[in-house]
Amino acid sequence: MFAGLEEVPRSWLSAIESRLDLLCQLKSGPSERLSEAMRYSLLSSGKRLRPILALASAEAVGGDPFSAIDAGCAIEMVHAFSLIHDDLPAIDNDDLRRGRPTLHKAFDEMTAILAGDALFALAYETLSSIKAEPARVTQSVLLLSQAVGRDGLVGGEYVDVVMEGEAASTEAIDYIHPRKTGALFAATCAMGGLLGGGTNLQVTALKAYGADLGLAFQIADDILNETSTEEQLGKPVGNDRHAGKQTFPAVYGVDRSEELAKDAISRAIGALQSQGIESPPLFQIAQFAVSRKH
Amino acid sequence: MFAGLEEVPRSWLSAIESRLDLLCQLKSGPSERLSEAMRYSLLSSGKRLRPILALASAEAVGGDPFSAIDAGCAIEMVHAFSLIHDDLPAIDNDDLRRGRPTLHKAFDEMTAILAGDALFALAYETLSSIKAEPARVTQSVLLLSQAVGRDGLVGGEYVDVVMEGEAASTEAIDYIHPRKTGALFAATCAMGGLLGGGTNLQVTALKAYGADLGLAFQIADDILNETSTEEQLGKPVGNDRHAGKQTFPAVYGVDRSEELAKDAISRAIGALQSQGIESPPLFQIAQFAVSRKH
Repeated sequence: MFAGLEEVPRSWLSAIESRLDLLCQLKSGPSERLSEAMRYSLLSSGKRLRPILALASAEAVGGDPFSAIDAGCAIEMVHAFSLIHDDLPAIDNDDLRRGRPTLHKAFDEMTAILAGDALFALAYETLSSIKAEPARVTQSVLLLSQAVGRDGLVGGEYVDVVMEGEAASTEAIDYIHPRKTGALFAATCAMGGLLGGGTNLQVTALKAYGADLGLAFQIADDILNETSTEEQLGKPVGNDRHAGKQTFPAVYGVDRSEELAKDAISRAIGALQSQGIESPPLFQIAQFAVSRKH
Repeated sequence: MFAGLEEVPRSWLSAIESRLDLLCQLKSGPSERLSEAMRYSLLSSGKRLRPILALASAEAVGGDPFSAIDAGCAIEMVHAFSLIHDDLPAIDNDDLRRGRPTLHKAFDEMTAILAGDALFALAYETLSSIKAEPARVTQSVLLLSQAVGRDGLVGGEYVDVVMEGEAASTEAIDYIHPRKTGALFAATCAMGGLLGGGTNLQVTALKAYGADLGLAFQIADDILNETSTEEQLGKPVGNDRHAGKQTFPAVYGVDRSEELAKDAISRAIGALQSQGIESPPLFQIAQFAVSRKH
């Protein structure tokens, strides 16, 4: 996964993997299978882009990158929770995720709903256990909650589903994409900056970077869903289109969508530069968002 | 609902209802129906026992009861979220709740899953927005998260479902009941004490009170599920037994279950008295838990 991300220290990824494994240990007893389900989704091979962004954001404001590792892991738990619920039969009804059966297929629907809920709770348990200035921790909890709730990730997913099959429109994607992906990326970078000791202006700039990065990332995802191979995607090609999803290519075509993703990346980098934030990892992740092949 | 709860000021309940209404306002726009679903569940006529406990706990340590109103509302949101998800077809598959169609019946399953998630996020948004000493707020977030997660509410519900149909056993109810009900009651009282400015010892005593109160409350619920009328319950009588649920009457019979509930209430009151906490509302709520008829 690191082709194109050479500026991200290898040690970050292994630290994130170890920390996730530790924070979500298997618990024996009557609910052991619930633990297994949480681990199945959380520890499957993702890009870990959100935790990496948290570490890079902490470093970008002059902090220790590892001051944000638990926040990054909490966000990865929220990301895993949202994917589990989105994949459910009543929502997107997906059977495959990253080339493996989705959680409700590998386990069952009851376990998937509750494992998602438990991962969401574990995210807040992780976040509220961080040993940092308490006001920065409560601010992080607030950022995460706003990013997830009805005017964030969950609201975006809701509208994504209810608008399925309607004619693709700029109004719809302007509502869905910033919430479905941008909000959590924005919160991630802001939380990294906060826990790294950043100033309000730095945190605001990182939040703006994250929002535009997330938008670009989602546009690129939309494009890859059309132009990639099933092997690269780990799920069927074109399934967004077949489901009648609101996507950038559906509204603008592939070429114009690529331009819009690049525009978002320019804005993201501009937001950092406006506060004099020079971060090789954050700059490179921005390029990676639109140049990646999977 | 106040028969037997005369020590609880009437003004508390109206303040809680107004605050819930304000914290979960209808948001117009593409996700308006998601807002409506959240409000359908959150604002339906419940006993509001958890918010009342939060206010009473804050007062019991000498604080302003309203210092805990937002924490109480956050807990009520978590309670609503957990009921919505528990009622889903893949979990308890209940059609009625408090005499009305459950959320997935009144709306649909997709909306119910996401409205539950959004209420859970709103609980943390509410909690992290509280203007109090930040260390007490982060401690409240931690208490709530532990009460909800895989070793709390969600884990209890999971085991409750997987053990359906197995022979009722003390091991099962000893696992399920403290988690399914006790954990959130304990967190509620502890958070009330924390935000009311209580000492560590007072908060610990309130947590113990809440845990035993929750246990007694769940035992009484199990008994009412067997002995009440459908009109009183707002759902079919005996549906726990028909579903093969692990309940106190199934293990101990009704008479012994009533004794065990009373024992739990004695321990709850003893925990308060051990710290010299004299609270007429908390004492009366403890009696109400086992004397109520619905």
